[in-house]
Amino acid sequence: MLAAVLEEPGRIGVREMPVPEPGPEDVLVHVRRASLCGTDVKIRSRAFFSDGGPAAGTFIPGHEYAGVVAAVGAEVDEFCVGDRVVSEAHRGCMRCANCLRGRYTDCLNYGRRDKGQRTQGMTVDGGFAEYALNHVATLTTLPHSVDFDAGVVLSTVGTVMHAFDVLGDLVTGATVVVIGPGPIGLLAVQVAHELAAAKIVLVGTRASRLAAGTRFGADAVVDARQPDAAMLIREELGGRGADIVLECSGAAPAVDLAVHTAKRGGEIVLVGFYATAVTADLNHAVLNGVTLRTVRGEGAGSLARGVALAARGRLDLEALVTHHFRLDEISAAFDTYVERRDDALKVMLDVTENPETDSSTEKLGDGDER
Amino acid sequence: MLAAVLEEPGRIGVREMPVPEPGPEDVLVHVRRASLCGTDVKIRSRAFFSDGGPAAGTFIPGHEYAGVVAAVGAEVDEFCVGDRVVSEAHRGCMRCANCLRGRYTDCLNYGRRDKGQRTQGMTVDGGFAEYALNHVATLTTLPHSVDFDAGVVLSTVGTVMHAFDVLGDLVTGATVVVIGPGPIGLLAVQVAHELAAAKIVLVGTRASRLAAGTRFGADAVVDARQPDAAMLIREELGGRGADIVLECSGAAPAVDLAVHTAKRGGEIVLVGFYATAVTADLNHAVLNGVTLRTVRGEGAGSLARGVALAARGRLDLEALVTHHFRLDEISAAFDTYVERRDDALKVMLDVTENPETDSSTEKLGDGDER
Amino acid sequence: MLAAVLEEPGRIGVREMPVPEPGPEDVLVHVRRASLCGTDVKIRSRAFFSDGGPAAGTFIPGHEYAGVVAAVGAEVDEFCVGDRVVSEAHRGCMRCANCLRGRYTDCLNYGRRDKGQRTQGMTVDGGFAEYALNHVATLTTLPHSVDFDAGVVLSTVGTVMHAFDVLGDLVTGATVVVIGPGPIGLLAVQVAHELAAAKIVLVGTRASRLAAGTRFGADAVVDARQPDAAMLIREELGGRGADIVLECSGAAPAVDLAVHTAKRGGEIVLVGFYATAVTADLNHAVLNGVTLRTVRGEGAGSLARGVALAARGRLDLEALVTHHFRLDEISAAFDTYVERRDDALKVMLDVTENPETDSSTEKLGDGDER
Amino acid sequence: MLAAVLEEPGRIGVREMPVPEPGPEDVLVHVRRASLCGTDVKIRSRAFFSDGGPAAGTFIPGHEYAGVVAAVGAEVDEFCVGDRVVSEAHRGCMRCANCLRGRYTDCLNYGRRDKGQRTQGMTVDGGFAEYALNHVATLTTLPHSVDFDAGVVLSTVGTVMHAFDVLGDLVTGATVVVIGPGPIGLLAVQVAHELAAAKIVLVGTRASRLAAGTRFGADAVVDARQPDAAMLIREELGGRGADIVLECSGAAPAVDLAVHTAKRGGEIVLVGFYATAVTADLNHAVLNGVTLRTVRGEGAGSLARGVALAARGRLDLEALVTHHFRLDEISAAFDTYVERRDDALKVMLDVTENPETDSSTEKLGDGDER
Repeated sequence: MLAAVLEEPGRIGVREMPVPEPGPEDVLVHVRRASLCGTDVKIRSRAFFSDGGPAAGTFIPGHEYAGVVAAVGAEVDEFCVGDRVVSEAHRGCMRCANCLRGRYTDCLNYGRRDKGQRTQGMTVDGGFAEYALNHVATLTTLPHSVDFDAGVVLSTVGTVMHAFDVLGDLVTGATVVVIGPGPIGLLAVQVAHELAAAKIVLVGTRASRLAAGTRFGADAVVDARQPDAAMLIREELGGRGADIVLECSGAAPAVDLAVHTAKRGGEIVLVGFYATAVTADLNHAVLNGVTLRTVRGEGAGSLARGVALAARGRLDLEALVTHHFRLDEISAAFDTYVERRDDALKVMLDVTENPETDSSTEKLGDGDER
Repeated sequence: MLAAVLEEPGRIGVREMPVPEPGPEDVLVHVRRASLCGTDVKIRSRAFFSDGGPAAGTFIPGHEYAGVVAAVGAEVDEFCVGDRVVSEAHRGCMRCANCLRGRYTDCLNYGRRDKGQRTQGMTVDGGFAEYALNHVATLTTLPHSVDFDAGVVLSTVGTVMHAFDVLGDLVTGATVVVIGPGPIGLLAVQVAHELAAAKIVLVGTRASRLAAGTRFGADAVVDARQPDAAMLIREELGGRGADIVLECSGAAPAVDLAVHTAKRGGEIVLVGFYATAVTADLNHAVLNGVTLRTVRGEGAGSLARGVALAARGRLDLEALVTHHFRLDEISAAFDTYVERRDDALKVMLDVTENPETDSSTEKLGDGDER
Repeated sequence: MLAAVLEEPGRIGVREMPVPEPGPEDVLVHVRRASLCGTDVKIRSRAFFSDGGPAAGTFIPGHEYAGVVAAVGAEVDEFCVGDRVVSEAHRGCMRCANCLRGRYTDCLNYGRRDKGQRTQGMTVDGGFAEYALNHVATLTTLPHSVDFDAGVVLSTVGTVMHAFDVLGDLVTGATVVVIGPGPIGLLAVQVAHELAAAKIVLVGTRASRLAAGTRFGADAVVDARQPDAAMLIREELGGRGADIVLECSGAAPAVDLAVHTAKRGGEIVLVGFYATAVTADLNHAVLNGVTLRTVRGEGAGSLARGVALAARGRLDLEALVTHHFRLDEISAAFDTYVERRDDALKVMLDVTENPETDSSTEKLGDGDER
Repeated sequence: MLAAVLEEPGRIGVREMPVPEPGPEDVLVHVRRASLCGTDVKIRSRAFFSDGGPAAGTFIPGHEYAGVVAAVGAEVDEFCVGDRVVSEAHRGCMRCANCLRGRYTDCLNYGRRDKGQRTQGMTVDGGFAEYALNHVATLTTLPHSVDFDAGVVLSTVGTVMHAFDVLGDLVTGATVVVIGPGPIGLLAVQVAHELAAAKIVLVGTRASRLAAGTRFGADAVVDARQPDAAMLIREELGGRGADIVLECSGAAPAVDLAVHTAKRGGEIVLVGFYATAVTADLNHAVLNGVTLRTVRGEGAGSLARGVALAARGRLDLEALVTHHFRLDEISAAFDTYVERRDDALKVMLDVTENPETDSSTEKLGDGDER
């Protein structure tokens, strides 16, 4: 099969690789579409790996993908060949204290493949290839009304749903601030709107992204570069601050903004990854009973929640897909994503095509963008 | 002012009563619309009161109503005269252990007016009158896009939202069974649909109600009178049972149906009132880790959640209002409701009218129904 | 090895059986002590199995046991040969929606050994044998201060801890009613006392058991046969009812007693198994915001919680062990337990002995009882 | 009555003040003992007040105190004259969204006395006086086995219990790191020990305090000044980090230590107040699913939880009381506390004495310390 593999640090190539063999609990996925996220960039540069990472030419990245079941392991009856599926990244060891309590994305045996922990495209081969191997528990059925582009974006929605899920709350009627209008932030706006948040304020720096947020349901937008941004956000919320703040920018100063934006007793969820130490007025958080939660990625059931929203026709996922590339154009895809060419949001790899099993509603991106 | 008052048991009359004086934390509401619920029937018959209830001619029932702020107490700055508001029923003593923990509908001083506990239309005068007195904490602002009929129905939505709220879960992606297609059940279907439950099965006996449920978003309906109803419901859910079962019928046998309909680890919320002892296979619940929660009415913030859903235009509340009566026709309104004349769902009292403050989108019921 | 096996319905025999071979994630336990519980009685009679159960002479029951690690599978590094361990009953499939959310005792693939679900002594061979095979996740290390008798009783404490665990509360300062002074109820009294419940009321019928409860920390005892038992219990709690009611008797009428004993907003946990349908005034539960939770057995981490209490020297576990038998006396052990001879509570099988690895604090039961 | 009052910034005096009159929901407390905490120091210096604070000679501080009920308001039946009580600090407005949900310490109307919000010794007069006025909901009965010194320390235990309470967990069996061996940290060690945490590691800088922690139940102590403190702490916990970290030091660098000390999926509770912005590796928290909660003071029911622990004889509260002063010696008391003279922990004011109502177990501090 054709697969993208890590070569020397900073370079990704395309090679012929053997199709993997499913173990008894595995499913072989014929990958249709896959998309790039920020972690893939760190994987390509190898900054992601504390030990330098795998040998050149041996490792297939990619953790956001959707496709069609090509084969199932001996003990799998949850899926049949031909089923349309989307993948999530994490499989826990399912024997540590965290996995036993349902927190497999925080598996205490992270990276221990011998104990069954697998993270697609990070600790095991991923989806930038014609075929990918998934543990059965990491796949969710895609309804036919959701095409593969949208399906891939649902793996990002899974993270957003998990960020709301950890709050243990309906979200309906809450005031929500979203900081950072990248893919996660813009999807958070959509989800908050569909769950009927009372008011949604989107905070960012780029006008085009804020405008997109408004189209997706933000009731107000605030430019994060204004010196009194926290006050402006609070004003939009009647002076009291937000019930829920999702920090999706990954910009270190945004955490302090989040702290000053949450209301007394409010909840912050940090969904971004921070390149540097964060400095924030945590005394304000203590005095005001503000909680800071963190979410690394999707968790138990959150991808299925996103699929349910999409199945009801409630998300505009394709609007986030700005570019399409063939698998053998993956280096150009990375460059487009890293450099945010043409305001790139989600950059999609059209890995394989099969008109018979692909949904009739699937629409290809136009040729110009490729 | 004109007010409906309890006369001898079983009879309700209309009299002139003094307009109440707001205390420092009170708000005087000029009632526009009020609706009847099953508890009002027990109040009229006096079965509601363990001690026979108040003296004839002294007590004004009514706990579902909306109107316009007519005056505010000395320490109220949350509302202004002219604000459009909807009322919830319960005000706790706010000093018992339950109130201090946010469970004021389970106030340990229920009925103790001296300690500040007030339930509109039950332990203090309610809304079947031109003016009603509310503690400031029991009112929620109605957005202008929501007319008074819809606003009154929101007080029932508050109970539905609370039934979902106690689950501590997003509901999105869950499978939901609703038993009992009365006003609460039909609103539960709407809310579950808007929160993107993965699948919604409505269970009842009357074809017209089940058909209404389908219009409101039920994905499947099951006739509760079929001997294998539990199995039919499970089949609709892929054989596994429901994540969430809302028992809204108040029929004692429905609890056993709920137990056999919930999946392993599922959650049941009993929202109905049961006239008799309930017999159910609770051993099945124990073996399958099924929880039974109960909800008496709306709780903290749940009415505001319903208002948020309505403000986003996501609920069809007026479809539940089948009849309109004038306040002085209240006996006919009760009879219509009790006898379910013309398949009565919500029977509305048009208490007062004021074209200036009433929303421009407000539509009166047509004359035939009155 | 010597093992107790199910023979024809109602009979259990002792045979030579092959020592099981550990799979890669398994641990072979040299069983020291094992105890009997009510489920074992249903297993012996085969009432436990819906399909008649396994062929005679093939199945080893026993789900409460402790011993010493004799061998570990290829991928196990959590334990070493010689470690002292106690077993819990349930291993989930770890791929269904419930297992992924940490509810493996409610595994949706219960009984599906092909998918990895195993319940010791119920769906796979258990601990009434010299050796037992456990998935690594079902074992917890016993501290040396806890002898094997106490260790076996900890598997019952696991159920009690889980009953408190599902409440999501510290228990400290709560009022607790325990109904049913069997092993679970008496251990619940001990745990509630150690967690500093404000007041503990034990409810039962046998004076000797209630007296034991008093020794274990019950602040008051009430005879369940008194017609006004609910009122008497409430009086002990200042008239308000209990924050938490643990129903451990398995007597169907006890559920109604629990409902009338819980305070407004109180929590009931059903820990008993009911032989018949349960009739209870659930309308009282609805009007008072009472929740009914259910617990089938220990859950994630609850056995380890019990071990932590025991390690701090805070439980009197040996006081529950009333009888000791050798493995080849297992029929007499069953009869003693079933007939409650000499007020039997926990009946222990001394499966094997090894003075070198057994704790020095271990004390054998006296010869008369054997 | 004699009362300590704020004079010019930095000075506290003792004057005759009128005894306050209880309102209908108030209780007048004859104060026996009161203690100083860090917030009192900021109140004396006026750094606590954003507006400079009350006029000289008008305001009585003090929020940690216990005494005897001297009079009750017209609507109070929860207490009788002569009852022994301990006070908590916060009374919410009980009408804002937070109070209605049980989060009154995060009242949205903080400081709004007109709306009923009161914080003893901060927004209303407190307990450094012969008599103090409390809302009935802020008092908890002291059992006779708990003397007034211990009772006052219980108001600090309330904060500790709340820090555990917000976790929604039993704590039993969890590994706990406590940073900062001041009064809160040392009480946290005691509580964690009594709730049977699996292992407790106390982190601090002063040897005498760490030694006290060992006496109170810490299983290990670590010097926070060691460069590899996080690694040393993790080693004490088997390399995995702690389930729960309570940051009680208020030292800004301790938050980063807490982040690196928590295990994957662990919980941090910030109980300290930070004088400066906090810099921490929050990316580590995101990658590891670590939550940071905050607690400002005691919350609903947490003081009663502490009383329950004390009533069972499980806390050594008097060991924290290092100094006693008379009310007219309050300036010396402040100086002793601020300068940590003789390793001062809790500095107690013996406000009034009454041998008849004071508990027979009460022991006065010895004369030398005064």
